[in-house]
Amino acid sequence: MQSTSGQPNLRGRGPDSDVVMSCRVRLARNVAGFPFVNTATSQQQDELIHLLKNILLNNDLDEKLHWVDLTQSSSRERLLLVERHLISKQHAESEAHRAVALSRDETLSVMINEEDHLRMQVLAPGLQLEDVLTRINEFDDLIENRVDYAYDARWGYLTACPTNVGTGARFSVMLHLPALKITNEIERVRRAAKELQLAVRGYYGEGSESAGDFYQVSNQITLGKTEPEILGEFCERIVPKIIDYERHARRLLLEQNLSHLDDRVHRALGTLRAARLIGAEEAMRMLSRLRLGVTLGRIDGIRLDTINRLFLEVQPSHLQVHAGPGCAGNELREARASLIRSRLP
Amino acid sequence: MQSTSGQPNLRGRGPDSDVVMSCRVRLARNVAGFPFVNTATSQQQDELIHLLKNILLNNDLDEKLHWVDLTQSSSRERLLLVERHLISKQHAESEAHRAVALSRDETLSVMINEEDHLRMQVLAPGLQLEDVLTRINEFDDLIENRVDYAYDARWGYLTACPTNVGTGARFSVMLHLPALKITNEIERVRRAAKELQLAVRGYYGEGSESAGDFYQVSNQITLGKTEPEILGEFCERIVPKIIDYERHARRLLLEQNLSHLDDRVHRALGTLRAARLIGAEEAMRMLSRLRLGVTLGRIDGIRLDTINRLFLEVQPSHLQVHAGPGCAGNELREARASLIRSRLP
Repeated sequence: MQSTSGQPNLRGRGPDSDVVMSCRVRLARNVAGFPFVNTATSQQQDELIHLLKNILLNNDLDEKLHWVDLTQSSSRERLLLVERHLISKQHAESEAHRAVALSRDETLSVMINEEDHLRMQVLAPGLQLEDVLTRINEFDDLIENRVDYAYDARWGYLTACPTNVGTGARFSVMLHLPALKITNEIERVRRAAKELQLAVRGYYGEGSESAGDFYQVSNQITLGKTEPEILGEFCERIVPKIIDYERHARRLLLEQNLSHLDDRVHRALGTLRAARLIGAEEAMRMLSRLRLGVTLGRIDGIRLDTINRLFLEVQPSHLQVHAGPGCAGNELREARASLIRSRLP
Repeated sequence: MQSTSGQPNLRGRGPDSDVVMSCRVRLARNVAGFPFVNTATSQQQDELIHLLKNILLNNDLDEKLHWVDLTQSSSRERLLLVERHLISKQHAESEAHRAVALSRDETLSVMINEEDHLRMQVLAPGLQLEDVLTRINEFDDLIENRVDYAYDARWGYLTACPTNVGTGARFSVMLHLPALKITNEIERVRRAAKELQLAVRGYYGEGSESAGDFYQVSNQITLGKTEPEILGEFCERIVPKIIDYERHARRLLLEQNLSHLDDRVHRALGTLRAARLIGAEEAMRMLSRLRLGVTLGRIDGIRLDTINRLFLEVQPSHLQVHAGPGCAGNELREARASLIRSRLP
C-alpha cells in the first residue's frame, strides 16, 4: 500500500476543489452463471475469487493491480482500507470470501464479493467525473472482454440490489459544505437532494455521520437512463447547484459575519496547533473549519493539500501505522495531536 | 488614575505568588459623633466627606492621596474602580454621598461612606500580610490623630455591621486555585474554610463568581481577638494550608495526568492567541489555565506579570478605556481578543 500522501483522491488539486474533495464512479457487475454473493456457497465465492484474480492481475491490462485478500488480512488492515475509501465498511466486515484489487496510486479499485461480484471504482480529486467515467468504462471493457457479465437486454446489468440494475453505475462527489452547516442551510440541501432522488451520506458512505462537514452525494437512479444522461444531469445541473449554494453561503459569511468567521477559523487552527490530546471527531471538525479559512483566504501559509491529507492521517488506523497497532485511547489521541502539530508548524 | 500596569496587586511578584495573587488588610472605622452611613442624612454624609477629605488630602500624611468623588463620577469610572478592586460593587452602586481616596500606586485606598465612614485597605502582591498590616496601622494611626473614631473600651471599634466590631480588621488573600478546581477538591476547601469561619468569595468579593479560579479568602471574626492573633492564625495556619493543598493538587496533575495538563494549558494559550472574538468569562478561564501552565513550567516564554495584568485588562471597563466608552457586544469581544493577542505574541 502507498504512503498516505500517495492517494490523489484526498489531495484536492482538481477542479472546484474549494468545495469538491473528490469524485468517484462506481460500477456494479456480476459474472454470468454464478449466484449473487449473498446466495453463493463458500466454494462458489472461492471460484469467483480465483477467476477474477486471474483476470485482474493479468499483465495485459493497462492498470497494474495489487491484490489484497481480505479474508486473510487483519481487521486493522481492512479498517485502513475503509479509511482510504477503497473498500466499504460492509466489505471490511463481511463473512464472505472477499478481496480487493488496487491500482498503484489507489485511484482505481475493485472490490470482489462485496454486494456484487465486482464493484469497480475510479476516484479523482475535485470534480472531473467525465474523465473518471471514461477511465472506468475503458477498464470495464477490458474486463468484459474476458468474462461474461450478467446482463439482460431489457434491464441492462443485473445486480444483487434492484437499485443498481441498469447501468450499474453510481456517480458520487465528496463535498465539503462547512458554510451551509454554519448557516444552518444544510438540511435544506439534504431535503432538496432527496427530492432529486440523490443519496446524501457522511464521510464513510452509507450510515456514517457527516464528519468534518463532508457530504457524499450520489445518484440513486441507474435504470432507464444511459450513463451519459445520468452523468449530464448529475454533473451539469445538480452538483454545480450545490457548489454554488455553498459558495454563496461562504460569501455571506465573508460579507456579513467576517469577525465570527475569522474567530472560528483561527480558533480551529489555534486548537490544532496547541492540542496535546485530540480525538478523531474533534480533529475532523477543526480541520473542516481550517479548510474553510484557507479556501476563503482568511488563513495564509497552509496548503490545502496538507489539510486534505490530514483528514486521512488523523483516522485511527492511519495513526496506528505510525504509532503502532496497539496504540489506543489517550496514547492515540496524543499521537494524533503530535502528528497534526508536525504538519501545521 | 494610573495605567493598568501600575497596579502592584495584580503583578504577582510577591511571596508565594504561584498561588497567592494578592493580599489585603481592610480596616473599618467610623467617626464619633456621626450616625452610621445608612442612617445619616445627606447633610451629615456631606459633612463627613468634607471632614475626611480635609484629613486625607492633608499634606502632613506620608501617603499622598488622590480624591475621587463617586457621586460625580460616571458609572463607567466607578466600574473601572471595582475592576481594580479599589471600591466595592456596593460602593459603586450606593445612593449615598461617597468618595474614594487612592494612593498613587493604588496599593492604599480609603472608601468614604461605604458601609462604614471609612474603609481603608492596603493591597500587596503575593502573601505579605505582616507588612501590609504594619503599613495600614501606621496610616490608621495618622488618621486617628486627627479624628475621633467611634470606639468602645469593651467592644473595640464600632462598625455598622456587628461582624466588623472589635478590631474592624479583615485580612484577605486572593488565591488562584486552578488545580483544586480541576481535581474537584475545591468544594472540600470551601467547606473546611466555612468551618474555620472564613469567608470564601469570588474575584469581585461578596456574591461574585469564582471567575478565573480565583477565590478570595478572608477572616470573619473581628471580635475578642487582637489583630496579631487573627493574623497569626490566618497567615501562619490557614492560608499556608490552602496553598499547600493547591500545590499538592498541582503536583498530582504533573505526576499522574501530565498529558491532560499539557493539553489543557496549551489549548488555553492556543485559544488566547487565536481568538478574534472572546468574552470576559472565557478569557478569564483561559488565562487561569495559562497561569497554571506557566507556574508549573509547562509553558515557556510568557511572564506571570503579563498574565496577571491581563486578568485586569480583559475586564469590560478597562477595555473601554482603550476601545472607547461606547464599545460593547461584539466590538468589545473583538477588542478583548485583539488586546490579548498583542500581549501574548
